[in-house]
Amino acid sequence: AARRVAQMPPTIFAEMTALAQRHQAINLGQGFPDFSAPDDIKQAAMRAIAADCNQYAPGAGVSALRQALAGYYRRHYRLDFDPESEILACVGATEAIFAAMLGLLDPGDEVILFDPAYDSYRPAIAFAGGIARSLVLRPPDWRLAPERLEALVTPRTRMLLLNSPHNPTGKVFSREELELLAAFCRRYDLLVVTDEVYEHLCYDGARHLPLASLPGMAERVLTVSSLGKSFSVTGWKVGWAVGPAPLVDAVHKAKQFATFCGATPLQTAAAEALAVEDDYYRQLAEDYRRRRDFLCQALAAAGLKPFVPAGTYFVMADISASGFIDDRDFCRALPEKAGVAAIPASPFYADPEAGRRLVRFTFCKSWPLLEEAATRLRRYF
Amino acid sequence: AARRVAQMPPTIFAEMTALAQRHQAINLGQGFPDFSAPDDIKQAAMRAIAADCNQYAPGAGVSALRQALAGYYRRHYRLDFDPESEILACVGATEAIFAAMLGLLDPGDEVILFDPAYDSYRPAIAFAGGIARSLVLRPPDWRLAPERLEALVTPRTRMLLLNSPHNPTGKVFSREELELLAAFCRRYDLLVVTDEVYEHLCYDGARHLPLASLPGMAERVLTVSSLGKSFSVTGWKVGWAVGPAPLVDAVHKAKQFATFCGATPLQTAAAEALAVEDDYYRQLAEDYRRRRDFLCQALAAAGLKPFVPAGTYFVMADISASGFIDDRDFCRALPEKAGVAAIPASPFYADPEAGRRLVRFTFCKSWPLLEEAATRLRRYF
Ligand SMILES: CSCCC(=O)C(=O)O
Ligand SMILES: CSCCC(=O)C(=O)O
Repeated sequence: AARRVAQMPPTIFAEMTALAQRHQAINLGQGFPDFSAPDDIKQAAMRAIAADCNQYAPGAGVSALRQALAGYYRRHYRLDFDPESEILACVGATEAIFAAMLGLLDPGDEVILFDPAYDSYRPAIAFAGGIARSLVLRPPDWRLAPERLEALVTPRTRMLLLNSPHNPTGKVFSREELELLAAFCRRYDLLVVTDEVYEHLCYDGARHLPLASLPGMAERVLTVSSLGKSFSVTGWKVGWAVGPAPLVDAVHKAKQFATFCGATPLQTAAAEALAVEDDYYRQLAEDYRRRRDFLCQALAAAGLKPFVPAGTYFVMADISASGFIDDRDFCRALPEKAGVAAIPASPFYADPEAGRRLVRFTFCKSWPLLEEAATRLRRYF
Repeated sequence: AARRVAQMPPTIFAEMTALAQRHQAINLGQGFPDFSAPDDIKQAAMRAIAADCNQYAPGAGVSALRQALAGYYRRHYRLDFDPESEILACVGATEAIFAAMLGLLDPGDEVILFDPAYDSYRPAIAFAGGIARSLVLRPPDWRLAPERLEALVTPRTRMLLLNSPHNPTGKVFSREELELLAAFCRRYDLLVVTDEVYEHLCYDGARHLPLASLPGMAERVLTVSSLGKSFSVTGWKVGWAVGPAPLVDAVHKAKQFATFCGATPLQTAAAEALAVEDDYYRQLAEDYRRRRDFLCQALAAAGLKPFVPAGTYFVMADISASGFIDDRDFCRALPEKAGVAAIPASPFYADPEAGRRLVRFTFCKSWPLLEEAATRLRRYF
């Protein structure tokens, strides 16, 4: 193996999902819905396959998808992107972020990100020879401390990597926080990559605001999102990056030799999905809010103190009262002992100690499963 | 843009397909069939979508696909791979090769490959910090000259990157050549990545032999292939890498953070496709042989001297008699002037001069299109 991968662990999601399967545990670990995608979009994909949309897409993505994305960003956020030069379809947001690092970072460039951070971010930065500098967000409110942000800046700081709504904490960055980050990026002339895949999963009046929509930001922000979480098709791997043409072009240059293109019929179906009425997203969020409330109550009842999330389909819980003092031990025991799987938080931190008492649960599961998980947790704890 | 991509051109396929579309030319450039995939496999994909196979696949690929691949390699080539540790589904062969370079090469490691070389190879090597050393294969027979192979070896030589059947020349490496390469790799203890995506497109009695099946090679060869060319679904992006567990694991470590997984329903359908009878492949090859013969005759009639390929769905032609002295000029003019698009050969060479008189045409097109292309070429030249 190459040195760059020799020390890399397998992603924590693979490990925990395998463990869940081994013990037939209810998988509240990896974030994928166990219920069906909307029938319309499944039909659209089937029609695309039947209609022979089965050959290479253009490298930037099928034209209908790029058009649909332009309309989507205009309608939802008043952001304008040219389908020809400012929109790039990717193999999920994961590829968009990976290719963004390879296309935008030179070796030694530093990237500021927030811990806990989604587990592909640091490896993606490392593949590009970049250096991750993280700011730890702390419970209960995961508040952004501006003074600690300044302390991370060096002459090599090149990029801010933001994720809002934030996995795994469920934090939705507030307008004030985003304005602060925007001013910070303008002051230090930073590029920004924002991962907004949970953009439609916001609760209790929290609202997602793309950083690209703040003054002076459009020119420096690459906005990344995907279809998976908004349409319950995490396995379609239809994601995208949108932003100024020079940034998108740099990302495309890396992307074209990584995968060339994604699955054509699913991109075609994605174009149809994005034409959905706003009401769809409202219902989705309302539906997830109810699941969130249920799971948070169940966790609290089991003595696993939940930090109620304003967004995403994840909730972090403090396991201090459970008797376990290590999040990995907890998550390795849980499937067998309690019949439930979760994700330890420490792999999301540069300093694993910061995550030792935290475990992430997902509520993107059907009601019978959530109810059974609640019963099992109550029984075990 | 990062320095590593600043000088990278957009892939030649994107450029030429866009040009073909602009001039409504018959696209004999990029290699994708314009006819339908087999109905069975389209039905299988539609069933998978209907049956909610729409969430993340395991990182290594859906289990049914890995099982099917194990059976496939056993049946076709008597090669044994463990579905749990020796088989990795990828987003097309392109991602498999890309992740292989990131997972197996350290900066400064040298890779021997054959020019003309598929256009993603050199960038993939470069992303990993590797150094490409190429051996030029020359028409008419693209013969492998052993003495020139030895001359490429240095203490940093780490890998051989082989592609057989070979794009863009259509060469199928003979058993003698493969034995020579195998001995060479054993002598210098080289890893091998073999790109075998055209494995079923061999003509006139030429037979594809995986390098992994030669003595002492299984332990050092990562075999890469895909569904796209064998089942006319280039846009499904279902590829794979199979080989010894330590190699597959290293590739997976890079792949997991590049895309995590590919499209689940299409992987599920791929598992069904691979259960097809041998007769399917025989008919496919016989069908392509007829198209090959037709296109070669058409090129010859137009004065574009074809080097009749023993494999793949490509044919290289010598344009010397056409009046053009530059393959790019030829291919930039052809869509507008003749209403046909092709791919210049020089982007496939480290030294573009070696490809100046060569242009690649594909015959993976339906008969009416091939016939019309023949008419247009005859008319123009
Ligand atoms: C790509 S597997 C991880 C899925 C996910 O988004 C999560 O669980 O955080
Ligand atoms: C990935 S686009 C190139 C398709 C292809 O295999 C070729 O035309 O050589």
